[in-house]
Amino acid sequence: MASSVFFTHSHCYSSKPSSLVFRQVGVGPTSLRFSSSHVASVAAMAMDSSAKVIDGKSVAKQIRDEITAEVSRMRESIGVIPGLAVILVGDRKDSATYVRNKKKACESVGINSLEANLPEDSTEEEVLNYIAGYNDDPSVHGILVQLPLPSHMNEQNILNAVRIEKDVDGFHPLNIGRLAMRGREPLFVPCTPKGCIELLHRYNASIKGKRAVVIGRSNIVGMPAALLLQREDATVSIVHSRTSNPEEIIRQADIIIAAVGQANMVRGSWIKPGAVIIDVGINPVEDPNSPRGYKLVGDVCYEEAIRIASAVTPVPGGVGPTTIAMLLQNTLISAKRVHHFE
Amino acid sequence: MASSVFFTHSHCYSSKPSSLVFRQVGVGPTSLRFSSSHVASVAAMAMDSSAKVIDGKSVAKQIRDEITAEVSRMRESIGVIPGLAVILVGDRKDSATYVRNKKKACESVGINSLEANLPEDSTEEEVLNYIAGYNDDPSVHGILVQLPLPSHMNEQNILNAVRIEKDVDGFHPLNIGRLAMRGREPLFVPCTPKGCIELLHRYNASIKGKRAVVIGRSNIVGMPAALLLQREDATVSIVHSRTSNPEEIIRQADIIIAAVGQANMVRGSWIKPGAVIIDVGINPVEDPNSPRGYKLVGDVCYEEAIRIASAVTPVPGGVGPTTIAMLLQNTLISAKRVHHFE
Repeated sequence: MASSVFFTHSHCYSSKPSSLVFRQVGVGPTSLRFSSSHVASVAAMAMDSSAKVIDGKSVAKQIRDEITAEVSRMRESIGVIPGLAVILVGDRKDSATYVRNKKKACESVGINSLEANLPEDSTEEEVLNYIAGYNDDPSVHGILVQLPLPSHMNEQNILNAVRIEKDVDGFHPLNIGRLAMRGREPLFVPCTPKGCIELLHRYNASIKGKRAVVIGRSNIVGMPAALLLQREDATVSIVHSRTSNPEEIIRQADIIIAAVGQANMVRGSWIKPGAVIIDVGINPVEDPNSPRGYKLVGDVCYEEAIRIASAVTPVPGGVGPTTIAMLLQNTLISAKRVHHFE
Repeated sequence: MASSVFFTHSHCYSSKPSSLVFRQVGVGPTSLRFSSSHVASVAAMAMDSSAKVIDGKSVAKQIRDEITAEVSRMRESIGVIPGLAVILVGDRKDSATYVRNKKKACESVGINSLEANLPEDSTEEEVLNYIAGYNDDPSVHGILVQLPLPSHMNEQNILNAVRIEKDVDGFHPLNIGRLAMRGREPLFVPCTPKGCIELLHRYNASIKGKRAVVIGRSNIVGMPAALLLQREDATVSIVHSRTSNPEEIIRQADIIIAAVGQANMVRGSWIKPGAVIIDVGINPVEDPNSPRGYKLVGDVCYEEAIRIASAVTPVPGGVGPTTIAMLLQNTLISAKRVHHFE
């Protein structure tokens, strides 16, 4: 098969079978479904491995520099410093790392960070009390509850308690509703999908009128990413675990946002030549060459994608850094709004 | 061209050029893009004009009978009669007709209907006062503000004033947000898209895993219809005025919900053989044979669609009647919820 050249030296593999989520679909050679002209054009593209790497670290740095300047201008003009409060319940190591990174990021741009660390066996009421305190504290402009919460707590109750004007995560249903509706504006756009669109903008990827496919329909990434793309006049399709022919639909996309949590699911042969790819997945796969025994890969097979796409985010170093930058931006937006500072 | 047989005796025409909304796209012959095998299968289907007509009137009657029985059971069990209040501002004839039809529909199932008719030059405050009154009135379980409002009023302010527990239209952003989010439930689903899905269910159209295309992205039909289809595990694409190749995408759909307000936009050649079509459009087109000089047609060319689809809603008599039935259902749901009646 002509397209098998792609896979000969592929470094894409997964520790889990990639049919785990998209059960209906094999990931074997799909070249039989291509017309011969498609194979030819794919082969031609394969020669050209000049796809741009979308450098999320660099974009994040640029955004953080802009935020630093704005925070400083605000402090000097009206004496207000934006504040972000993070609530961490329990002692999950990964959560503790995320919270520490957010704290550091706040410090780096001059945003105040407050932190509440509650023990694993706290009651829902105790968490709600902290939220109520931050809701009423005028020095706090954003409140973030680190997920997941311990299983004895009702996540919805707790997230709903965050005052919508401080919901910098943008997960409140009222925010999501406004995001979905034409003519309405959400107070905050969820950080990860906002970062995805920011990457597209900063790399001058045109969105209007383009075919976009979002893979995954989670409340925190896939669904709001689809709504954002539609707000920018893309023609959006949402592919998920029940989709019977994901590769066929993905192959039509000018823009792919992959947020499914499935290592290397999207293969080179699934990608339209010249597509722009934003890969939200961060999946550990076995790697005997790594001292840790594993490495992180995205939902898209990067080595194959880089040969056929026009631009791709790497994992790590793509979407991840922009997510935190967007959290800082939302906190700044919140502080500006409450103080009518423009 | 082989596929031109479709158009020879077509009754589909539009008083407006059908490129009005979808400007980028001509509606000329698209057969050149078909493979010859596709043309052959389309031609075979064309012989079979046995597509089911989805009879919205009959479905609506069935639903209204069910509602009548429930309203009666509720009245007899707990002495409560559901109540719907409609606010009409101004003297638009079409709005007055809609309100009258809603009133009649309420009466036919035993729901109380209240009506406030305000003059065209009312102030926003006067409308808000009526809403406040109905919000506080325990005999009112649903409040509906007939749109459009006079241009001097802020539609958002007025719609936002309706208490969410009585927002039987389901247009509140909080409802839309919950509709978009997995694991959340809206208090009410907007009536027209809810009716579309009800028609699919009552005609046993399978939705899970199917390709669905929604044409149009309005807040009241297209957008919530897409969210509902996705909740039922369809793979959804949303086509709109900025889509550069609507017919190509529509042709992939097992389910089409057309809600764009463009007479006969979707031609037979745009339809996948066997697709199920829900046509929300109600467009007047010139008709010298009609005593009124015009007739109503949908967004889909019915005469062509009926030859190739497996089921189609007619216009009128398809989606229209189910919309009002869903309004009655939402009012009943609201009354049941507030009185904990199951």
